[in-house]
Amino acid sequence: MSEVSYETVMLEEPTLPKPRYLFVGLPDAGLVGQIAAEYLIRETRMAEVAHFYLQKLSPTIVQVSGGLAKPPIRLYYSQNMLVFNSWVAIPPALATDVAELVCSLATKFDVYALISVTGIPVPNRLDLERLGVYWITSNEELAKETEKMSLAPRFDEGYIAGPYAPILLESKRRGLRNLVVTVESFLDLPDPEASAAAIEVVSKFTGFSVSTDNLLKEAEAIRARIRGLMEETKKNISGRAGPTTYA
Amino acid sequence: MSEVSYETVMLEEPTLPKPRYLFVGLPDAGLVGQIAAEYLIRETRMAEVAHFYLQKLSPTIVQVSGGLAKPPIRLYYSQNMLVFNSWVAIPPALATDVAELVCSLATKFDVYALISVTGIPVPNRLDLERLGVYWITSNEELAKETEKMSLAPRFDEGYIAGPYAPILLESKRRGLRNLVVTVESFLDLPDPEASAAAIEVVSKFTGFSVSTDNLLKEAEAIRARIRGLMEETKKNISGRAGPTTYA
Amino acid sequence: MSEVSYETVMLEEPTLPKPRYLFVGLPDAGLVGQIAAEYLIRETRMAEVAHFYLQKLSPTIVQVSGGLAKPPIRLYYSQNMLVFNSWVAIPPALATDVAELVCSLATKFDVYALISVTGIPVPNRLDLERLGVYWITSNEELAKETEKMSLAPRFDEGYIAGPYAPILLESKRRGLRNLVVTVESFLDLPDPEASAAAIEVVSKFTGFSVSTDNLLKEAEAIRARIRGLMEETKKNISGRAGPTTYA
Amino acid sequence: MSEVSYETVMLEEPTLPKPRYLFVGLPDAGLVGQIAAEYLIRETRMAEVAHFYLQKLSPTIVQVSGGLAKPPIRLYYSQNMLVFNSWVAIPPALATDVAELVCSLATKFDVYALISVTGIPVPNRLDLERLGVYWITSNEELAKETEKMSLAPRFDEGYIAGPYAPILLESKRRGLRNLVVTVESFLDLPDPEASAAAIEVVSKFTGFSVSTDNLLKEAEAIRARIRGLMEETKKNISGRAGPTTYA
Amino acid sequence: MSEVSYETVMLEEPTLPKPRYLFVGLPDAGLVGQIAAEYLIRETRMAEVAHFYLQKLSPTIVQVSGGLAKPPIRLYYSQNMLVFNSWVAIPPALATDVAELVCSLATKFDVYALISVTGIPVPNRLDLERLGVYWITSNEELAKETEKMSLAPRFDEGYIAGPYAPILLESKRRGLRNLVVTVESFLDLPDPEASAAAIEVVSKFTGFSVSTDNLLKEAEAIRARIRGLMEETKKNISGRAGPTTYA
Repeated sequence: MSEVSYETVMLEEPTLPKPRYLFVGLPDAGLVGQIAAEYLIRETRMAEVAHFYLQKLSPTIVQVSGGLAKPPIRLYYSQNMLVFNSWVAIPPALATDVAELVCSLATKFDVYALISVTGIPVPNRLDLERLGVYWITSNEELAKETEKMSLAPRFDEGYIAGPYAPILLESKRRGLRNLVVTVESFLDLPDPEASAAAIEVVSKFTGFSVSTDNLLKEAEAIRARIRGLMEETKKNISGRAGPTTYA
Repeated sequence: MSEVSYETVMLEEPTLPKPRYLFVGLPDAGLVGQIAAEYLIRETRMAEVAHFYLQKLSPTIVQVSGGLAKPPIRLYYSQNMLVFNSWVAIPPALATDVAELVCSLATKFDVYALISVTGIPVPNRLDLERLGVYWITSNEELAKETEKMSLAPRFDEGYIAGPYAPILLESKRRGLRNLVVTVESFLDLPDPEASAAAIEVVSKFTGFSVSTDNLLKEAEAIRARIRGLMEETKKNISGRAGPTTYA
Repeated sequence: MSEVSYETVMLEEPTLPKPRYLFVGLPDAGLVGQIAAEYLIRETRMAEVAHFYLQKLSPTIVQVSGGLAKPPIRLYYSQNMLVFNSWVAIPPALATDVAELVCSLATKFDVYALISVTGIPVPNRLDLERLGVYWITSNEELAKETEKMSLAPRFDEGYIAGPYAPILLESKRRGLRNLVVTVESFLDLPDPEASAAAIEVVSKFTGFSVSTDNLLKEAEAIRARIRGLMEETKKNISGRAGPTTYA
Repeated sequence: MSEVSYETVMLEEPTLPKPRYLFVGLPDAGLVGQIAAEYLIRETRMAEVAHFYLQKLSPTIVQVSGGLAKPPIRLYYSQNMLVFNSWVAIPPALATDVAELVCSLATKFDVYALISVTGIPVPNRLDLERLGVYWITSNEELAKETEKMSLAPRFDEGYIAGPYAPILLESKRRGLRNLVVTVESFLDLPDPEASAAAIEVVSKFTGFSVSTDNLLKEAEAIRARIRGLMEETKKNISGRAGPTTYA
Repeated sequence: MSEVSYETVMLEEPTLPKPRYLFVGLPDAGLVGQIAAEYLIRETRMAEVAHFYLQKLSPTIVQVSGGLAKPPIRLYYSQNMLVFNSWVAIPPALATDVAELVCSLATKFDVYALISVTGIPVPNRLDLERLGVYWITSNEELAKETEKMSLAPRFDEGYIAGPYAPILLESKRRGLRNLVVTVESFLDLPDPEASAAAIEVVSKFTGFSVSTDNLLKEAEAIRARIRGLMEETKKNISGRAGPTTYA
């Protein structure tokens, strides 16, 4: 809805079979979606599709990989899946700009559905052996389809805030399909186990082939590596109204 | 008066007999108006008329109902009544935008009068057996008419602030009829009993048929369910000048 | 000087003999000017001339009188005097907008002079039997005239801040006559006695006929009724540089 | 450089022999320049040349002198000297606007040089019998000329911040001559003795005839009278990087 | 990317053999780059090329050198090297403007590569006998070239924030070569030894001839002189996400 100001630098024209999906990885509670996105990129050796330069993303943070500087928001793909991932926390003031960008990409690449993965912080997370997974959709058609697939129970009543909320609302406004997979998670500890649970559901929904074995094996290392991003993200989460009721 | 920026998505063209009324439910002291609006919607199984996307409503909050995402400000109707309800607190900075939107809807649907319901916090609320109800109108013609109906005594001298104030002022400026029903209530505890008292008066004024029995029965459950919204709303209320004198 | 945004709704075309005066009542130290203005309106049963809708006056506050909603800034008149009065505190950020509006009204109604009344807080106010009154003018011509009338001594050296300051400066810039009557007063207690002392001087200057007897009789009741407005006004006064030297 | 918004009201067309000078008096450390400017105005009975209405100077402060209201920034002259003086503290956000205004006046009246006087706060000010005076210039030509006159040693290495800094930079940018006379002074006590030391140097540089005897005699009275302005000015000075090295 | 507003005053048209380099000295952790830049300017008696007037650089700070005022951001050169140096801390809000300016200069003078030098704060800095130096580049071509020269190991994985980050990102966006030399350093103590280590690498990369002997000899004096700038710079650094992982 608002005026967007970013520049897209295309590195490669991706070739994906249909139906295609756009997986969105943004730092949020437990970094559940971001860890999932980064894992998909590494594990399936995705190709770099585009770099995004967001004018208002201040202060500027540059990611360095193998001595090479890169803007921290990038697009990747393999098989039938595009992955949009941010290696930096999205300030709340930029969340609607990012939602615009993500929805534009969904249209540009003619994807069947946007897929978001977000954590629902639960106080008893440590005691949970099996993490509850629930879905939300942007429209009734996708809700029916998801219900038929028996992937997970639906998120019944409540609210969604955070960086995935404007994407969900903007998808609905534009008539795009957006499947939001919510997983019980820690609030401000990186939660790779929650990411794994979400990937299982996403994999079933999209047919994208990936094993979460390595994600679970490397959980400890990921938690350590991603601590800085969790700190930055915490500043945006704290004091925010999370989902208040579900299932 | 200010430049409004929202998008309306119409779901259904409502058919209402005349004279029509537009009931406005916004989170304010005791959530009196919001609880009343939501009760009317549920109890009389109102049909969904429109969704509103407010650009400046930040951070974005999405309401989820039965797994389906919805923008949290929506319009409903049944019989001769439209109900505009917000499931999220309105930041003071957006109150005039919402007033614009509400007054535009009153004109669009050619309603006879806007109806607002708001709580007047009283310190001795717990001791009151019967809650005082008082009315305010946007113009003399409606004041005379209301006086004749002997619905309740008038609000004599004082001030009105909060989300209903810009609607009242904008109605006056545009020459629209706005009946404000004020009820003695709690400040920051959801007050379904106050909502019930207001609905009785509104029902007499509009001829809209509804029983408040279920509202009083479910009062405890409503108080529990709506706690999160009350918390958000408290932030806007605190430090605000409420009505200072009345009756 | 700045871009003004308000809407004026005229209720009646006033008929005043010349020379006409525009009395300005704005909440400031001791509410001296505001109490004086409201007293003139009530005591001489002034007619309502216009309502003003100020776009930027946020949060919106609506005044209710006899069940009827009114914008809290209005224009009245009787005999040769227009009275502009605000029933709400003017945020400092709006003071220049109000100055524009007031000076435009002075031109529109072709008044001979604007008349402001403001309190000069003195620490020993309680001990004063007779309150010092001093005048300031926007130009030399009016200064000479005022001096000749021996109404009161002049305010010799110092500064004026608060809501009357931009009116005084804007009057000077536009070449309008502005008489400022300053009275020793309380800082943050409503001071009807100071208002009465000012009205005596204003009455002599303009020939406007009014007795201050009732104002002095009702002093206690006024102090009680106007407490809320004093609280709001205090927020704007505190920390402000008041007149630093005088007489 | 930025867009300036002020209105100049000319009271008199000054007649000055060439070379002319524009002395700038702005409240800063020790009020050294402001006290000097006001002394020049009073002592040599300068004529009032212009009043300046700065739109963004908020909150509005009006100076009163002999019952007459005046904008607190004004221009005076006598002999070969114009004096620009502000009776109010300049908020840092307005400093570049004032620099624009001052440089425009220098061009309009075709002055040979702008002259600024500013205090360099020194911790041992109380122990100093003779105050160090140092000069800075906006360009090399003026530096050579000043050096030849042996008025004082030059300010060798360091930084200048505060309201005189943007005037110095803007003069340089526009190719105007600006002589800055810096004097050791108190930080937040009005320092008329420092003003006197500066005036001696300015007098030699410009040929402007004035004795500083009265300034030294009235030092105590000035300190008392100007306390309020010093308080306002302190808010702008505190936390600012002053000149860090000199001589 | 954003609208830049600065004015460039050219003092001399520099004549440099190709390939030319643009060394950027901005105050950041340990002032490593700024100290290096100032040393290159002094030690090789560089000629002053240009002065930059940045409109938004507020509050205005003027540098004084030998009694002469200068804007604190200037361009110098000798041999095949241009040096852009800021004698004042760059507020984060201005960092993208400075990046625009620096990249424009790189294009204007047709340089082969931009060279940035920045400190990586390490807690055990005091214990290090030999400081680790690592490089980052804006593109793969330069990365390969740098790798071949065996100047230093590459910065492997991590993030770069601070004033050099937007220059790196903007260089990448414009397709300019930017070599960033990072050196282990103190966080908020000026670190001339780190600057010397960086200069060694830069000298090898560019062929620019300079000895760091004097820099090491004067280290103590530099640390004392530059304390004020370090204080200003600290305000921008504190709370910032520095490089989180390397080597």
